[in-house]
Amino acid sequence: MNDFVLQVPTKIYFGKDQLKHLPEEVLQYGKKALLVYGGGSIKKIGLYDKVVKLLEDAGITIYELAGVEPNPRHTTVNKGAAICKENNIDFIVAVGGGSVIDCAKAIAGVVKSDTDDVWDFVEKKCDITGALPLFVILTISATGSEMDKWSVISNEDINAKRGLGSEFFFPKASFLNPEFTYSVSPYQTAAGSVDIMAHIIDNYYFTKNPAMEMIHNIQEEVMRTVVKYAPIALKEPDNYEARANLMWASTWALNDYLKAGVSMHTSNHSMEHPLSAYYDMTHGHGLAILIPRWLEYVMQKDPETIPIVARFGRNVFNVDQNLSDEEAGKKTVEVVSDFYFNTLGLPGKLSDLGVDETHFKEMAKKAMKGDSIQGFIELDEEDVINIYKMCL
Amino acid sequence: MNDFVLQVPTKIYFGKDQLKHLPEEVLQYGKKALLVYGGGSIKKIGLYDKVVKLLEDAGITIYELAGVEPNPRHTTVNKGAAICKENNIDFIVAVGGGSVIDCAKAIAGVVKSDTDDVWDFVEKKCDITGALPLFVILTISATGSEMDKWSVISNEDINAKRGLGSEFFFPKASFLNPEFTYSVSPYQTAAGSVDIMAHIIDNYYFTKNPAMEMIHNIQEEVMRTVVKYAPIALKEPDNYEARANLMWASTWALNDYLKAGVSMHTSNHSMEHPLSAYYDMTHGHGLAILIPRWLEYVMQKDPETIPIVARFGRNVFNVDQNLSDEEAGKKTVEVVSDFYFNTLGLPGKLSDLGVDETHFKEMAKKAMKGDSIQGFIELDEEDVINIYKMCL
Repeated sequence: MNDFVLQVPTKIYFGKDQLKHLPEEVLQYGKKALLVYGGGSIKKIGLYDKVVKLLEDAGITIYELAGVEPNPRHTTVNKGAAICKENNIDFIVAVGGGSVIDCAKAIAGVVKSDTDDVWDFVEKKCDITGALPLFVILTISATGSEMDKWSVISNEDINAKRGLGSEFFFPKASFLNPEFTYSVSPYQTAAGSVDIMAHIIDNYYFTKNPAMEMIHNIQEEVMRTVVKYAPIALKEPDNYEARANLMWASTWALNDYLKAGVSMHTSNHSMEHPLSAYYDMTHGHGLAILIPRWLEYVMQKDPETIPIVARFGRNVFNVDQNLSDEEAGKKTVEVVSDFYFNTLGLPGKLSDLGVDETHFKEMAKKAMKGDSIQGFIELDEEDVINIYKMCL
Repeated sequence: MNDFVLQVPTKIYFGKDQLKHLPEEVLQYGKKALLVYGGGSIKKIGLYDKVVKLLEDAGITIYELAGVEPNPRHTTVNKGAAICKENNIDFIVAVGGGSVIDCAKAIAGVVKSDTDDVWDFVEKKCDITGALPLFVILTISATGSEMDKWSVISNEDINAKRGLGSEFFFPKASFLNPEFTYSVSPYQTAAGSVDIMAHIIDNYYFTKNPAMEMIHNIQEEVMRTVVKYAPIALKEPDNYEARANLMWASTWALNDYLKAGVSMHTSNHSMEHPLSAYYDMTHGHGLAILIPRWLEYVMQKDPETIPIVARFGRNVFNVDQNLSDEEAGKKTVEVVSDFYFNTLGLPGKLSDLGVDETHFKEMAKKAMKGDSIQGFIELDEEDVINIYKMCL
């Protein structure tokens, strides 16, 4: 196990009656807000009006960046940063899911660093030297961005999607009200649930250097939470218990406590980012299609991985303890596929999403960190192309 | 489930090679340190010399408060605070376990508040309005004080032991090296392990208002970690994996993540504090004697508690799933007793520790919050006396 450093300063307000604390939190930083949100679903559920009223009643002037797209673009980030700079914005309030939060984090960073273009961070032309204070009102359980230091930004010009991390990116406070997720569609609920699990899979036992047993066991518990409550949330969208467990699971999946001492291996995220960069698909859906095939592929390529896949299946999906590792490994691929494609109802093939082989070679190149993806097993370009093909 | 607010700002350095980061952390706050420690075990293991050298090499002047007793006294706190005030101390470094850390927190509070006597906080004559920055080097896995905002201080003059809490009490950074616990005696390892479990039991499902299922399941996982690794640490004191899991479990047990949305019920801690105040016994040992009898008593008094005790036994101590709730409840008391008194080897009766009925009435009065202890079931003075008697 590795040594680790852990500090997660974000303050969490969780529950039904917490949003009233927003003004007291933001007023510590000033009176000019940039409100960042997406396509307008927050208006439909009345959340937009609620937030605006709370802020205006507290004497806060609101500027807006609306229409942040899924897989937020670097140009949108730059637009938001320009608004902040022109108007001397004091803090940002992001109302939405991962895309909106990630966009807001990147805006916050550009405003306090020596550039007007967020892509300069990606290309290492400029360091992130600070960030505007950020407050989050979460509306979908998926990315965990509400309590972490990461932001993923896309550049359409070059079909690239990249992660940016900075200690400055931790939100000051995040408001998690499970009720705000009641209106999330079945499709987005399903894709978000896959995303939660994928964040843990990226830090799970699929490594040759496991962390403390306690950490891996808790990871399994958080994944079991998703397996239990995602189907309930699909059937009963306003089941508070199900939405609450999913919401808190999404935050835990990425808030560093479950990464402590772990050797990360972001194989699936590395393979998915080119998919959503080229085809603008929902990130969690791309992951759902990839993960079962990736499990299948790594077991074929390296039999040493079989007992670990078997453990995953037994402890998370209740695969029969009496099966041999080999049988349990196979069964795990089956039950994971069944969970994603039947229980959660996500179409199971890339071809269902209009993907064909055209860009596989370029996409595999983009998935690489150097010459390969390190992880559970090392994957080179050919491996990634093979996995993409298995997903067709 | 309750709404909750969660913020845990303490930075954790976990592992073998982290202490070197101490100077960079403390130097942010100044160059004059108060070093707080206990009876000298840190000198035996060479940790004292290591810490002093690190600080002195960084140009830091060290003042000392040595000899902090188990169940630290308010007079010791006041002595430490006086040293800080006389010498304009910038920060405190606590090297030790819960008693040392709790003492250091209280000192830090007195220095930055309008009093010279920590007991003024207890008696609410004075608010805690700030605290000196505190850094912790942990040497025993038990109290979780390394990542929480609580301090427990004793007043021998009136046989009282009281908890003080403040947002200012979170350590700035805590250094957790499992190797520093290799020399912890079997007795203290056992008592500390009981303490870890007791902190979770205080926030577990033993309540009529459970939290999110995910939280309770993770609590069970952390308790299973103790059940698995405490016996290994007893047999192999320098087993890094066992010491690491216990250390991290001790921190998790009290660092607010497992209290999120929970209705606390500190029945056992409330009953134990008078015990260690009157008899100066090791806190975890007192808890070990009380917990099985408390479980037995609440099941007798309120049959509605039986299924919950049964769940605890099944999920934490692997009690046979096929037993009825009633059988499983009884079995749970047996296996918990067996774990504490046989596996961990702690003497199982208060009479083993020289306790008789003499002070039970006064002690039960001190255990009350108002007229009763709220919790799993409400306990009044008579109940507490009955439980004490069952422990003889």
